[in-house]
Amino acid sequence: MRKYKGYLIDLDGTMYRGSEKIEEAGNFIRELIRLEIPFLFVTNNSTRTPEQVAGKLQSFDIPALPEQIFTSSIATANYIYELDKDARIFYIGEEGLQVALNEKGFRFAKEDADIVVIGLDTKVTYEKLAIACIAIRNGAKFLSTNGDLAIPTERGLVPGNGAFTQLIQFSTRVEPTIIGKPETIIMDQALKVLGTKREETVMVGDNYDTDILAGIRAGLDTLIVHTGVTTKEMIKHYEKQPTYSIDNLAEWPFL
Amino acid sequence: MRKYKGYLIDLDGTMYRGSEKIEEAGNFIRELIRLEIPFLFVTNNSTRTPEQVAGKLQSFDIPALPEQIFTSSIATANYIYELDKDARIFYIGEEGLQVALNEKGFRFAKEDADIVVIGLDTKVTYEKLAIACIAIRNGAKFLSTNGDLAIPTERGLVPGNGAFTQLIQFSTRVEPTIIGKPETIIMDQALKVLGTKREETVMVGDNYDTDILAGIRAGLDTLIVHTGVTTKEMIKHYEKQPTYSIDNLAEWPFL
Repeated sequence: MRKYKGYLIDLDGTMYRGSEKIEEAGNFIRELIRLEIPFLFVTNNSTRTPEQVAGKLQSFDIPALPEQIFTSSIATANYIYELDKDARIFYIGEEGLQVALNEKGFRFAKEDADIVVIGLDTKVTYEKLAIACIAIRNGAKFLSTNGDLAIPTERGLVPGNGAFTQLIQFSTRVEPTIIGKPETIIMDQALKVLGTKREETVMVGDNYDTDILAGIRAGLDTLIVHTGVTTKEMIKHYEKQPTYSIDNLAEWPFL
Repeated sequence: MRKYKGYLIDLDGTMYRGSEKIEEAGNFIRELIRLEIPFLFVTNNSTRTPEQVAGKLQSFDIPALPEQIFTSSIATANYIYELDKDARIFYIGEEGLQVALNEKGFRFAKEDADIVVIGLDTKVTYEKLAIACIAIRNGAKFLSTNGDLAIPTERGLVPGNGAFTQLIQFSTRVEPTIIGKPETIIMDQALKVLGTKREETVMVGDNYDTDILAGIRAGLDTLIVHTGVTTKEMIKHYEKQPTYSIDNLAEWPFL
């Protein structure tokens, strides 16, 4: 294996499982810190702020700072800033998206917005969805923080942001630009923040269909860890294999 | 042309255009009444009660009784009643659906419902959509009153019930049974209420993709009237033509 100068690391299934600790995760991160290897946590979650996510990691004894949390909301804000920093935005989303967009100083609008962003919003209303559809039909660019179809909860699988994205796409017949994994925009934006080269960076995650696929598509080496969604058995059926496969993060031989 | 013993008649674009009167519509209906030919108004709208719809038609000087209004909500309730009159239902929808389900005496449930029905609900919440998704993943049958992708309003096109249906379908990966036009369930249910034979009944409407297609699929003769969505020019591109085509309802020679 190669020595990597940068790590992009998934959260759920990799650093913890829902509200459950993954024992090896804390030491993995402490080893990166000891070796002075830069890393970012890359999450499709758009609802929380970096401070909230770092707090959750700390509660699992994982040393994480807010500036090491790269959410799909931050990726979206950075992407829009490159596209058009004067864009007037209409967004559907929670605090994570709101804070990320505000930090970039964007202006906001409704039916006459230049860009519509949809992120998960458990307070979504018909009126918000109607404004989004009208703005997109009026010509606004259509962005979605992530295409996740469902979210696991104790009650069962509830609709993810991808389902609301699909609603707007179906109604407007306009294809969204999706920011989150397995799409590459979040990876490209994370690399810019991390500052390492593509060939020196590895993507670490538990979910082939999001983490590993995003890494492969972005031209990164990938490390799958079987503590979450994708099992060893499932991996066999994919044409493109991850660069590395381990059962848990303690197995990773840092070089 | 044949002499028809029963008429199924669309509303928007056929009897009126949004909030605008269609001049020939009132006389068309008065002629059906004079000739004692039974008819039903068949609408994908699930939000209003028959009384509300009849009131709107009367405001355009069209003689209509509540029992002549056949909404997708009534079709849904009748369909479920045939399927399983003891079914426990979870529904998302407005007054039209609520009243139609209550009139059949159904019981209601949440995550453990036997049947989930989605109709347009401008007060929809994330919680309602979450319950629908969980119930469907738990095995509930998934019904949708109609697949309309958008609804015209003065502000522009806003999401229709088909868009919310798509959200649930995408998130659960379960295909819905759609009741409304151009699907045939609403036509079959309307024929049962009207009481005429398929070959003696004609479907009248302005929209090829909903009204005429529903009629063709249900094995009825069809009459397209170019006072709404589908123009003469557009009709040429369809493989299956309507049985009759007229510019306005005054041209129809009742036999």
